[in-house]
Amino acid sequence: MDTGVQTTVPAEKSDVSAATKTPTTLSSDCIINFARGDPMLYEPYWKNKGDRCKMVTLGDELMSYFSNALNLCWFLMPELDCAIRRLHRVVGNAEADNRFIIVGNGSTQTFHALLYALSSPGHPEPVSVVAAAPFYSSYPEETEFLQSRLYKWAGDANCFDKDGAYIEVVTSPNNPDGSIRHTVVNREGGKSIHDLAYYWPQYTPITHKADHDVMLFTFSKATGHAGSRIGWAIIKDKAIAAKIVKFVELSSIGVSKESQLRAATILGVISEDCQNPGLEEENLFEYGRRIMSARWKKLREVVMKSNGTFVLPEYPRDYCRFTGEYTDSNPAFAWLRCKEGLNCEKLLKDECRIITRGGTCFGVEETYSRVSMLCSDAEFDFMLERLSTIKN
Amino acid sequence: MDTGVQTTVPAEKSDVSAATKTPTTLSSDCIINFARGDPMLYEPYWKNKGDRCKMVTLGDELMSYFSNALNLCWFLMPELDCAIRRLHRVVGNAEADNRFIIVGNGSTQTFHALLYALSSPGHPEPVSVVAAAPFYSSYPEETEFLQSRLYKWAGDANCFDKDGAYIEVVTSPNNPDGSIRHTVVNREGGKSIHDLAYYWPQYTPITHKADHDVMLFTFSKATGHAGSRIGWAIIKDKAIAAKIVKFVELSSIGVSKESQLRAATILGVISEDCQNPGLEEENLFEYGRRIMSARWKKLREVVMKSNGTFVLPEYPRDYCRFTGEYTDSNPAFAWLRCKEGLNCEKLLKDECRIITRGGTCFGVEETYSRVSMLCSDAEFDFMLERLSTIKN
Repeated sequence: MDTGVQTTVPAEKSDVSAATKTPTTLSSDCIINFARGDPMLYEPYWKNKGDRCKMVTLGDELMSYFSNALNLCWFLMPELDCAIRRLHRVVGNAEADNRFIIVGNGSTQTFHALLYALSSPGHPEPVSVVAAAPFYSSYPEETEFLQSRLYKWAGDANCFDKDGAYIEVVTSPNNPDGSIRHTVVNREGGKSIHDLAYYWPQYTPITHKADHDVMLFTFSKATGHAGSRIGWAIIKDKAIAAKIVKFVELSSIGVSKESQLRAATILGVISEDCQNPGLEEENLFEYGRRIMSARWKKLREVVMKSNGTFVLPEYPRDYCRFTGEYTDSNPAFAWLRCKEGLNCEKLLKDECRIITRGGTCFGVEETYSRVSMLCSDAEFDFMLERLSTIKN
Repeated sequence: MDTGVQTTVPAEKSDVSAATKTPTTLSSDCIINFARGDPMLYEPYWKNKGDRCKMVTLGDELMSYFSNALNLCWFLMPELDCAIRRLHRVVGNAEADNRFIIVGNGSTQTFHALLYALSSPGHPEPVSVVAAAPFYSSYPEETEFLQSRLYKWAGDANCFDKDGAYIEVVTSPNNPDGSIRHTVVNREGGKSIHDLAYYWPQYTPITHKADHDVMLFTFSKATGHAGSRIGWAIIKDKAIAAKIVKFVELSSIGVSKESQLRAATILGVISEDCQNPGLEEENLFEYGRRIMSARWKKLREVVMKSNGTFVLPEYPRDYCRFTGEYTDSNPAFAWLRCKEGLNCEKLLKDECRIITRGGTCFGVEETYSRVSMLCSDAEFDFMLERLSTIKN
């Protein structure tokens, strides 16, 4: 659920403008933005799919507010419901059968809906929302910006010692550092949100079928279709599911049917390709894993040559039930650490003209900074070139 | 911006299920839902447009989070921006040139964004949100459900006598009663939101080009495409516009590009038809006005025959700058009033097996109830038949 969208509008605009230049216009002095996680990596893959992913909509289609009046989530298109369940069965990354699926406008809206659903309107105190640092940089602002009396941001889960109700957000693999996470507070009565945006085979070995009470996924990071704004929650409890539906109803009266139908088509193609391995074409996860793995290899080589200026986390190999082999983690972000005393974000900006997101945004020291690995090929190569100019 | 979606899930489900039956299955004992404003009236019109409204999307299109990095509203597709400005110029209902256009996930999300943008985070007291009764039934719950410290619902604007900051929501033509509205509080420092969802020529004469600081429109009621969830704000002040953008970013990181592009196509076809009156086809507004006018005529006949059990509001004819003639108002909802002492919603439910939304939801007496005029032809005829069975 990470865009890397920076929340200061002027900075955002100038950064983006630089970052969206095409390869031919990437000049040696331009500033490139790797703070955001725009998943353009996947564009060439989808270009090759031709008509299989084509969606045609006529003027009189998809007009009603309602998608399936008989379903608890009345705005969820049945096609998307089926496609999501099928994909989770095919990949084996999450239990979706006999669970409620609720669609939202991206996993960001779905995250808001989950906070609402897990809080208690009648309670005198807002519920504390925590996540172990380094945590996704947008959680604090998303939780706080409406100044709700229902919930409040309470920081690093590792330091949480307040009494009372809490919600722990567990992002696994974690954004920004790619680590595999579990709840850390583990107090009776605590609730948790498992944000599994990156729990797909291109990023990490699928070691088990996740089956938490409240799980969150996003189309953006699974397939690269960030512009469609489709996220979904998988929920065990009916009352919680009904509250999530209520939130999406009161916030936006549902979710774009055009996006839902397109997501259904695209997820369907992925499942089909995975289930027909005889085809010559790679499935999305093979493609993603191949590209990400090559990028991580190149990045590690460059970092190695920095003579200790930069360090990257190491990830254990693990058995992936989806591929049937031991695989590496190739996280969507590189979590760079500089030598003690250095400001990593500033160093990268000043020395490499690369915009990244510094550790303090994620609740840790400024020696860290997060770099997106999901950019286009041309931008990635440019980034490596810039990084390799730093030698101690 | 009215769905008529009822917020109690089980009721919603059963009501909708009954209401979505096709004409052939509308049996004499079924319960029909006219509480919601699903604009199915327009479906036959769009069916006739064939390929002109066709939208084709390939798998590798619309992938990025960003639509126009150089625009303040970085997630607004330039195509939609142009189509909205063009349509307002063609219709003459609102000044959109030299204003900021911000797209939202329906006018519901845009309304939330406006509350956020017009409130003051540093202020010790939440800003009061008011609207003159009868007001749109969802405003109170939408304003209150997150229990924000930024704003609070303060009820009927006509009775508002508190000191301090306030936001007055002015819906004109009004939902539920179709009246033309202006601000009623008019105190210095007060802010207003002009919800112009129904200020289109099929519903009301376009008497002037609206030019308020903060105006709100929705694709759903303008064209009938409720499933696309597209709303927009037209804003004079840059700082307010930036706060709206920030809200949509923090709430959902933008708006479905598929929906935006489809809305752009459809709004473009409408403008084109209006600008080429030589064509044999009716433009959308002529079609809408013809159907709505015929429905209102039939409804008034039935109400007349009720011998005073029901009364409908009267609307003044006025000069419409769009059509160039004096036209009637044909509101999207009929605001029925029963005889003193009767509960209109209950009467309609018990005697006619028609679900409507009672006056108390809109801040007035239960002698009133609101009936949607935007249903399909079959449902409308059924409603008239049911209503005509009541004779005093």
